[in-house]
Amino acid sequence: MSLKGRDIISIRDLSREEIEEVIKASRRMLPYAEGTKAGHQLDGHVLTLAFFEPSTRTRLSFETAMARLGGRCVTIADAGTSSLSKGETLYDTIRVLSAYGDAIVLRHPNEGAARLAAQASNKPVLNAGDGAGQHPTQTLLDLATMQEAVGTLSGLKVVLLGDLKYGRTVHSLAHALALFGAELVLSSPPSLKLPDEVREHLDEMGAKVTEEGQLHRAIRDADVLYVTRIQRERFGDEAEYARVAGSYRIDRAVLAGAKPRLVVLHPLPRTAEIAPEIDDTPHAAYFRQVFLGVPVRMALLCLVLTGKAQ
Amino acid sequence: MSLKGRDIISIRDLSREEIEEVIKASRRMLPYAEGTKAGHQLDGHVLTLAFFEPSTRTRLSFETAMARLGGRCVTIADAGTSSLSKGETLYDTIRVLSAYGDAIVLRHPNEGAARLAAQASNKPVLNAGDGAGQHPTQTLLDLATMQEAVGTLSGLKVVLLGDLKYGRTVHSLAHALALFGAELVLSSPPSLKLPDEVREHLDEMGAKVTEEGQLHRAIRDADVLYVTRIQRERFGDEAEYARVAGSYRIDRAVLAGAKPRLVVLHPLPRTAEIAPEIDDTPHAAYFRQVFLGVPVRMALLCLVLTGKAQ
Amino acid sequence: MSLKGRDIISIRDLSREEIEEVIKASRRMLPYAEGTKAGHQLDGHVLTLAFFEPSTRTRLSFETAMARLGGRCVTIADAGTSSLSKGETLYDTIRVLSAYGDAIVLRHPNEGAARLAAQASNKPVLNAGDGAGQHPTQTLLDLATMQEAVGTLSGLKVVLLGDLKYGRTVHSLAHALALFGAELVLSSPPSLKLPDEVREHLDEMGAKVTEEGQLHRAIRDADVLYVTRIQRERFGDEAEYARVAGSYRIDRAVLAGAKPRLVVLHPLPRTAEIAPEIDDTPHAAYFRQVFLGVPVRMALLCLVLTGKAQ
Repeated sequence: MSLKGRDIISIRDLSREEIEEVIKASRRMLPYAEGTKAGHQLDGHVLTLAFFEPSTRTRLSFETAMARLGGRCVTIADAGTSSLSKGETLYDTIRVLSAYGDAIVLRHPNEGAARLAAQASNKPVLNAGDGAGQHPTQTLLDLATMQEAVGTLSGLKVVLLGDLKYGRTVHSLAHALALFGAELVLSSPPSLKLPDEVREHLDEMGAKVTEEGQLHRAIRDADVLYVTRIQRERFGDEAEYARVAGSYRIDRAVLAGAKPRLVVLHPLPRTAEIAPEIDDTPHAAYFRQVFLGVPVRMALLCLVLTGKAQ
Repeated sequence: MSLKGRDIISIRDLSREEIEEVIKASRRMLPYAEGTKAGHQLDGHVLTLAFFEPSTRTRLSFETAMARLGGRCVTIADAGTSSLSKGETLYDTIRVLSAYGDAIVLRHPNEGAARLAAQASNKPVLNAGDGAGQHPTQTLLDLATMQEAVGTLSGLKVVLLGDLKYGRTVHSLAHALALFGAELVLSSPPSLKLPDEVREHLDEMGAKVTEEGQLHRAIRDADVLYVTRIQRERFGDEAEYARVAGSYRIDRAVLAGAKPRLVVLHPLPRTAEIAPEIDDTPHAAYFRQVFLGVPVRMALLCLVLTGKAQ
Repeated sequence: MSLKGRDIISIRDLSREEIEEVIKASRRMLPYAEGTKAGHQLDGHVLTLAFFEPSTRTRLSFETAMARLGGRCVTIADAGTSSLSKGETLYDTIRVLSAYGDAIVLRHPNEGAARLAAQASNKPVLNAGDGAGQHPTQTLLDLATMQEAVGTLSGLKVVLLGDLKYGRTVHSLAHALALFGAELVLSSPPSLKLPDEVREHLDEMGAKVTEEGQLHRAIRDADVLYVTRIQRERFGDEAEYARVAGSYRIDRAVLAGAKPRLVVLHPLPRTAEIAPEIDDTPHAAYFRQVFLGVPVRMALLCLVLTGKAQ
């Protein structure tokens, strides 16, 4: 079992053991991510970042990971509007990009683009999000945050809250949590429920999944509350949006009914889903979650580029 | 007295001694800035550059300073139009950015944004311009250029010429020059005079300030002539703009009445304010001024990130 | 004979011996370009990239070359739309840019801009394309690819195919091939023939040049087939474009009449000029050509910045 030279397209490409290896390695990366130790693990390595749709945070997180371990990046922040792909197939573009760095981080608006890119490239491809498809490093950092905050990934009760229909991250996360035997509580407005095929996939995995539309009931006894954005554009009617968004808003009053050690995550940016008053409580793990994206990506890059992460 | 870990939001945050320390340190940085010596002072350090409005020169100057001392940058050149801040508070954006580098260089269109950012961030924030507010590294490099060109910052007679009302840099510079006991001569069209509150602040500092609208009288006996852009958009009438801009244009004829060692500075880009024929005279210090931005920023970054600048 | 400190504006600035030196040095750079060896030849060197029109591939190729040899880049990917040149002469812009890195790579939409920039800058300027003018590193990598694929640059029979009128790269390439005594076969639609002044220049050099509009006749006995894009916008009429483009399309049937070792190059991106079925044949050298841009630029950067390329 080695991740060296592997494409990382979907969290489903990774076994539970491989996910655990990345998370464990990410803990060894903490002093480098914090800047208290200068890393040299990726000295001489070059990473190509090709973002065909903007995702500034993901780009910065990968770039920081490389920079703090001695590696270099060559970056196209706006490949979609650049001259890069003008009148050219994705196959050709990726063949060209594989002439540069040792691996390619790809963000693309089209579902399936990363898998296609992996076929074209003779260098490893890391999927940094392809449309409504996969975004495996987001799932890895979500898991790493839960592991750090709760102390374990075994036997967790996790509430997935908000838009479970369109939210890219939440489908991958549900799969990964099921791998670790979590109990999942789905809490969403009726129009934004988890798609049937994702639910069926979880059932096939033998996951414990329940639904609970009422927020205060859903979070009772939960270890983790994973909040997602409810996007205005999903609703025809402004009043309907306001009503739904309001009933899934996390504030101190809502969390009064939760375990004292309930951990709140959010992929950010948030709009109104979490009140700022939560930021200073021990529940808030969402800014830590952003930070942990750096050591998690460090670990994954080390494993894919060098086969080890010390 | 140490600048380590300090936010640098306004030139007023720095004492005269601290300003002198940065300028003195910038002289030690010259061989690194010139590329004759490879620096390692910032090996292992990562700087986040977040430009919410474009300022290519300031960005390149900071990036060059880091690169020549062994540091790395993660950069958002167009944070304003990027996906970074979409529907998010500045507080959240800065909390996210502080997950990456060891310090944040912020450029923002809104006055006061840098102070707000410093409150949100647990990493030092360096203000690279916030609206009509402050731009302290510009002031430091202006001073460093005068120090190098004249040989001292004590007892200077400095003419501030052109748009003294809207010009961001000139208010900070006037404060800093007053700290060093300079005699200031204000020379501007009536509609572009220094704002009353800046003038009162200088008076409270005990600065020697006079006004002289006539350019040839203003520069007589001056050591330094600091020229600013007069922007077309400040005038309703094209003819009025042409008349005013013409009467503040520096050429050889104008400088014939000046000291042979008068030093001319300009924050650049210039339009018509300085005739190209001045470029080859010993008066011209404005391209040197651009260059000195690099060692000055090197010095400041070393002091803020490591506490020393050798 | 040394390239140290030289401006590289046009391939015509280089002698045959200098071109051979760059190509030979580029072979020594292969392990660094492939990432199997970490280079330190450009440790401590900083390159300024100023792209006044987008050219993502050329930018990435230069950035990769610097990164893999330990150097750093400060980059303006969109200088044309950035705040860099607002209301400023190219002379001033270049004087400012020369304050940063040790050399400037310039891409500009206006023919002659690179020559002007070289006059303004006290640092070497490398032309990465100026309008319909020169693009010397493209020519160098074209030659390096032929040298590697055929084993020699002497006595080649090279077909230049497609748009020979507007194609920037093909005029420089024709000159360089003539320097090496190649036999050139020009194959283009009548409306896209090589301009008279280029043809006359080749004649003055004593080059062997023939014209052959029929593709299957042109490639008979050829060692190299250099294919260029035929751009839709050159034709008023869609049907006429389709007819012409179709008659210059390379596929297996066309190559059946060629030497088994015929090498096909293309500056990319391609549209329909080369059928994807060619990609897997031994004829296809166009993706290798992209890759060889990296070691060629490494070699040139080493020679210009340090005077040697080991």
